[in-house]
Amino acid sequence: VKWEPAPSISSPDGKFEMNLRGRIYVDTAWINDQQDNENTQATEFRTARLGIEGKAWKDVKYKFEADFAGNEVDVKDAYIQWKGPLAVKVGQFKTPNSLEEQTSSRYITFMERASFTDAFSLARQIGLGLGTSGKDYTVNVGIFRGANATDDEDEGLTFAGRVTYGPKMGDTQLHLGASFRHQNKGDDQSSIRYRQRPHAHLAQNRYIDTGRFADKDTFFGFEAAGVMGPISLQGEWAFVKANIKTPTTGENDPTFNGGYIEASYMLTGESRAYKGSKGSFQRIKVNNPVFEGGMGAWQVAARFDRIDLTDETFFGGEQDTFLVGLNWYLNRHTRFMMNYSHANIKNATDVSKNDVNGKNKVDTIGFRAQVDW
Amino acid sequence: VKWEPAPSISSPDGKFEMNLRGRIYVDTAWINDQQDNENTQATEFRTARLGIEGKAWKDVKYKFEADFAGNEVDVKDAYIQWKGPLAVKVGQFKTPNSLEEQTSSRYITFMERASFTDAFSLARQIGLGLGTSGKDYTVNVGIFRGANATDDEDEGLTFAGRVTYGPKMGDTQLHLGASFRHQNKGDDQSSIRYRQRPHAHLAQNRYIDTGRFADKDTFFGFEAAGVMGPISLQGEWAFVKANIKTPTTGENDPTFNGGYIEASYMLTGESRAYKGSKGSFQRIKVNNPVFEGGMGAWQVAARFDRIDLTDETFFGGEQDTFLVGLNWYLNRHTRFMMNYSHANIKNATDVSKNDVNGKNKVDTIGFRAQVDW
Amino acid sequence: VKWEPAPSISSPDGKFEMNLRGRIYVDTAWINDQQDNENTQATEFRTARLGIEGKAWKDVKYKFEADFAGNEVDVKDAYIQWKGPLAVKVGQFKTPNSLEEQTSSRYITFMERASFTDAFSLARQIGLGLGTSGKDYTVNVGIFRGANATDDEDEGLTFAGRVTYGPKMGDTQLHLGASFRHQNKGDDQSSIRYRQRPHAHLAQNRYIDTGRFADKDTFFGFEAAGVMGPISLQGEWAFVKANIKTPTTGENDPTFNGGYIEASYMLTGESRAYKGSKGSFQRIKVNNPVFEGGMGAWQVAARFDRIDLTDETFFGGEQDTFLVGLNWYLNRHTRFMMNYSHANIKNATDVSKNDVNGKNKVDTIGFRAQVDW
Repeated sequence: VKWEPAPSISSPDGKFEMNLRGRIYVDTAWINDQQDNENTQATEFRTARLGIEGKAWKDVKYKFEADFAGNEVDVKDAYIQWKGPLAVKVGQFKTPNSLEEQTSSRYITFMERASFTDAFSLARQIGLGLGTSGKDYTVNVGIFRGANATDDEDEGLTFAGRVTYGPKMGDTQLHLGASFRHQNKGDDQSSIRYRQRPHAHLAQNRYIDTGRFADKDTFFGFEAAGVMGPISLQGEWAFVKANIKTPTTGENDPTFNGGYIEASYMLTGESRAYKGSKGSFQRIKVNNPVFEGGMGAWQVAARFDRIDLTDETFFGGEQDTFLVGLNWYLNRHTRFMMNYSHANIKNATDVSKNDVNGKNKVDTIGFRAQVDW
Repeated sequence: VKWEPAPSISSPDGKFEMNLRGRIYVDTAWINDQQDNENTQATEFRTARLGIEGKAWKDVKYKFEADFAGNEVDVKDAYIQWKGPLAVKVGQFKTPNSLEEQTSSRYITFMERASFTDAFSLARQIGLGLGTSGKDYTVNVGIFRGANATDDEDEGLTFAGRVTYGPKMGDTQLHLGASFRHQNKGDDQSSIRYRQRPHAHLAQNRYIDTGRFADKDTFFGFEAAGVMGPISLQGEWAFVKANIKTPTTGENDPTFNGGYIEASYMLTGESRAYKGSKGSFQRIKVNNPVFEGGMGAWQVAARFDRIDLTDETFFGGEQDTFLVGLNWYLNRHTRFMMNYSHANIKNATDVSKNDVNGKNKVDTIGFRAQVDW
Repeated sequence: VKWEPAPSISSPDGKFEMNLRGRIYVDTAWINDQQDNENTQATEFRTARLGIEGKAWKDVKYKFEADFAGNEVDVKDAYIQWKGPLAVKVGQFKTPNSLEEQTSSRYITFMERASFTDAFSLARQIGLGLGTSGKDYTVNVGIFRGANATDDEDEGLTFAGRVTYGPKMGDTQLHLGASFRHQNKGDDQSSIRYRQRPHAHLAQNRYIDTGRFADKDTFFGFEAAGVMGPISLQGEWAFVKANIKTPTTGENDPTFNGGYIEASYMLTGESRAYKGSKGSFQRIKVNNPVFEGGMGAWQVAARFDRIDLTDETFFGGEQDTFLVGLNWYLNRHTRFMMNYSHANIKNATDVSKNDVNGKNKVDTIGFRAQVDW
């Protein structure tokens, strides 16, 4: 039995292990746009999750988590994994795409992930995954069809893959990565759309939105990051080429893109925790936890995030967001976050939400109390 | 590891602790009203809950419970609490109001709480709470906005506070308490209404109901209780002044009120368990548990409950209920309950449910098997 | 603490015990019918369950499981049981009917149970059960009203009972059983209908369906099975007589029937695990588990399944299904399954799904990865 803060129970021979997992994020936010379509002041559980994770016969891992935020059920990771020279996974898990998507929301720097991750619908699906990894690299591929939330006759097919390389250069931890995803919607599924909120999940509006029009798309994403002691830089850029389901004369398939660049600094001297064999960021080690006499870890961060859903004859809109954040890690499992964001929207033809020129501006302030076990 | 009946696991240094929590209440009831609007004979899980509770770094407590009764999700307590000289709580929990509302449903004397608690919508909200307590007193205040179930643009604000004093006078345990709550609904939230079922959750009808009309209200409640060995007396009275959202000429803001007086007697000699530092009743200690050769604890109880939702130009109705109950505690975690209630309704202008004079009578018989761990 | 693969924690004095339970079945299937109404290629979690089970004071058992497949909540077993000379159960559990229904889906031979079990709506209800058992027999009766999913004013009543006898004759384990169920729907509940999918839960259509017409029915079922080393034979036949709620002139109450005969063979020499004191099949013991150097257990099986919902003036349809299956038990808790089925449908007057002569043919191929802990 190990504690931190929940017990991890294991058998004396090391063959079996089980953890109870859970997390609660309590959010409150203020959101206002220039067109006065939204004046949000509200709270929510961004995440309220219970689950279980275990190891059996050393090489088999099972995991099952469900989220109850909003008093609805959303099954998250739910899979069985065998880990030999090759790791084989069956069940529901994320398609292998994007550094920020692969990093748990517990460890990302801002309250929400980059705009492109949701806009291009990176998400969990039901499928089969194969992966291999070394100390500083990962290779993952997967084939997917549908998810726990889908209930269609023909659920289409998705292929995805990701490679990462994360060498240590002296004191600097680097990360380079690239991934793709090709999804083909089933005949009776609704078409694909691309849309995104401003930087706050409590926002009632998505100011940029292409509407539904595509039956297939192909995603490419590129990732880079570096950690030098307390300083961290991180950036990604991604493209998605969408195939119009029923093109009219003169209509061409559009390509949308989005990405971000982020800089952060740990005021209290810690480093962001990168793991080369996972190709993602992990739990930060706090030098002086609050309940052991310290002041915890303090982090400041800034980000520029861009998503462009306007191309060819599609005017979904462009959203450029400037973000600053302050994080206080009381210990390894408790974090308070404060985010401010300002978004400039243009070329968004949804005039019910934006002005006649397709422009708008949105400000958000958000606070989060986060605990996981 | 301590057992009763579920394991509570703690680390050797006492810094960490975790419990799995759960409860099941299986109910069946017969309900009939004089107007023959309802002839219920049905069953339900009144509560079917799973959750987790833990301590981390000694002073931090986290709790997360979800209810699955009716095959729907309802997140209950979900918060993080730091307990120093001042206890600070963030998350979803009950506003600090009413002795019976603050007492877990596992420990209340009848199958349902007093009519006024639901009628005046005492409930869990998402917020921040501050509290302090001594051996025989508690002081709690909180500020709240929305809940896990709400999804509004403007979720309003609620302020609440409660003080209790519970001195031991010789062999007599006293309890005195008072609380207030002021809630201000957000602009886009639906208006407040006041309504209540007869004393049975399986009832299909709420015979008294004001309809929705208020955007703000202020609640005051007063509590008193005494435990003298096997005898217990308990009473509360509460008032709510409601602010009409869009008053018409001659309409004045109404004030509604409700309360109850209860007497109970432990036939087998136990005492109801009051805790002054919590300002609420706790788990009864059973002298001779059934599965250890005893006959368990037996309790008889009677209550008069009143709720008056008729004032000014509002004829929500008055409901006076007489209740008797018989409880059999097999052990500290298992209880069988039998309740009979007779309600007199008057001045309730909803003639689809009541007679032309606004009157009705409702009889209920309910049985519950309750287990928690 | 015992492991396999989840920990079962018990107190040193043996009075208390607790297990965390869970199971995930990941399914994918291809389904096609002759009339081209369905061309399914999809995935789902057939089951995604978390729960808890415990023993308290030696003789009391509690169990609570909830299923989250499809992102919906479905409370499964949720009861308290006292086990003395007589076992008394209160809560939600299955009515005591059918060998295959009483056998956990983890241990049945094919991916879905016999057609008649769903068609005649054998299911969990809220009620009170009494049972007694010896080494080779079981007797169970129960009275039920409604379920966690029902919310009706009058939830009717159901009576059910089952007896089994499972003697060991030399090396042969026999099982004989019979059960009945009488259900009477409440006045305000919707009428009973009988219908069934082909042999795949992902199927979008139920080709046979009587529509809703009955307010009462009586079920009789007969069971037989034999296990001789690796060979197992199993069969059931069941009848349900339905009472038409509002019969028109010349309409008589119909009687429907269904059943199956199954043969299976463990290629790797194991035996199916029957338990006479439970009257059902249990977990198979795998001789050479995969993660301990073996090849697991391999099983082949064939079944003929029939359900006839055409009688008197009702043309719900007849469905005869031929099934073959291949199961690979990696160890006691992990199983991969492959099922192929071919169904012949006739006398099914739903011409939106079948041809003008009421005929159709459906082929299904299904794969499952199953884990439980």
